[in-house]
Amino acid sequence: MTRPPWNVPVSVVGLDGDDTLWHNESIFAATHDRFRAMVQRYAPDAGIDERLLATERRNIELFGYGVKGFALSLIETAITITGGRIGAPDVACIVDWAKDMLRHPVDLLDGVADTVAHLATRYRLVLITKGDFFHQESKVARSGLAEHFDVVEIVAEKDPASYRRVLARAGIDPVSFVMVGNSLRSDVLPVLDIGGHAVHIPYQLTWEHEQVVDHEHDGRPYAELGDIRELPDLLAR
Amino acid sequence: MTRPPWNVPVSVVGLDGDDTLWHNESIFAATHDRFRAMVQRYAPDAGIDERLLATERRNIELFGYGVKGFALSLIETAITITGGRIGAPDVACIVDWAKDMLRHPVDLLDGVADTVAHLATRYRLVLITKGDFFHQESKVARSGLAEHFDVVEIVAEKDPASYRRVLARAGIDPVSFVMVGNSLRSDVLPVLDIGGHAVHIPYQLTWEHEQVVDHEHDGRPYAELGDIRELPDLLAR
Repeated sequence: MTRPPWNVPVSVVGLDGDDTLWHNESIFAATHDRFRAMVQRYAPDAGIDERLLATERRNIELFGYGVKGFALSLIETAITITGGRIGAPDVACIVDWAKDMLRHPVDLLDGVADTVAHLATRYRLVLITKGDFFHQESKVARSGLAEHFDVVEIVAEKDPASYRRVLARAGIDPVSFVMVGNSLRSDVLPVLDIGGHAVHIPYQLTWEHEQVVDHEHDGRPYAELGDIRELPDLLAR
Repeated sequence: MTRPPWNVPVSVVGLDGDDTLWHNESIFAATHDRFRAMVQRYAPDAGIDERLLATERRNIELFGYGVKGFALSLIETAITITGGRIGAPDVACIVDWAKDMLRHPVDLLDGVADTVAHLATRYRLVLITKGDFFHQESKVARSGLAEHFDVVEIVAEKDPASYRRVLARAGIDPVSFVMVGNSLRSDVLPVLDIGGHAVHIPYQLTWEHEQVVDHEHDGRPYAELGDIRELPDLLAR
């Protein structure tokens, strides 16, 4: 394993929630599958996935991220695709799916519980997660990880300004901060942009070699790992 | 006007958002009226208001506060009350109402803009608002008031623990803090509980006398005002 691509020791570790600490995308994907099967009964060749994506893109500015906005987009798409033929019982089903998603147990990714507990003995930990506030708070509480975090921040958007605000409020110098998450766009690039460090751990990626791959963004390097269990070793180097 | 019911000068003023700085309840009430009119066409004597309230109460634990959860509860209630007879176009209407609510301009209450600007020259201001994160952030941004606030906190629930956390994080001693808002349950009582001070300004109350009424909660006094424009004078006493 190579050394991390930064040359100062970090003292604060930021961790993303969805798809970094616990499964999330898989829950959305399962509902998406049920939705496709339901709408196909009305309109077999309607390009359901594309039209759902288009609805979600159009609505994201108003709805933000999260289950409730997703459910409203599902309902809107179903009505449009079926030309209004979708029955009320099926709409009620979609509302029930939303509740199932919100009630879904928080499934930690493999190795997360031990790794976070271990990191907490050596670093100040900050959980920085995006999305529906109420649901994220509930997930943090149910994750069993809350006690390990010094700060929990739920933000509406993960951009450089929000990272700058979160770090300033917690009195954290970006130079001593590393953010760890599954999203290049949300967890890596904005943190590099404000002078921090970043580790990218793609979600459900099968990693052939247990080694750090160095990547760059505008000349600023970040690390990539296949598994969160490799994180303590990387940070200790 | 009497003096405020606390005897130390406050240096930090907390302000609630919905129905304290800007109109909110009136937007929900208008949608509620449209909903009642729509569902009455299907089921004239169904006790719509009571059943909507029951649905909302049942769902609040999962949906939290805000427009998107409200819309899902409207859809669920409409389907149940009509025995599934509600047509998809009407369901689409409800989704559109949600979008209208989220897009609704932020209408400040009378006197808010001047009062907040004035208070900002004398006190450290903290905005503490509850509800859907994404929507609240958008409302804060569109309110034109953000520049006056040193800290903006959007919380999932306004209880003593969340006030304690917000104040601790901002380095504010409750003794020097007064919270101002329209809700006894959310803005007044939990702040008194943690040793802070509070001013209650009921929403759209017509106040006969422009004077402070002293109230008590478990022996701890708080002030009540009819209009936010009376706040600077109260605090200056």
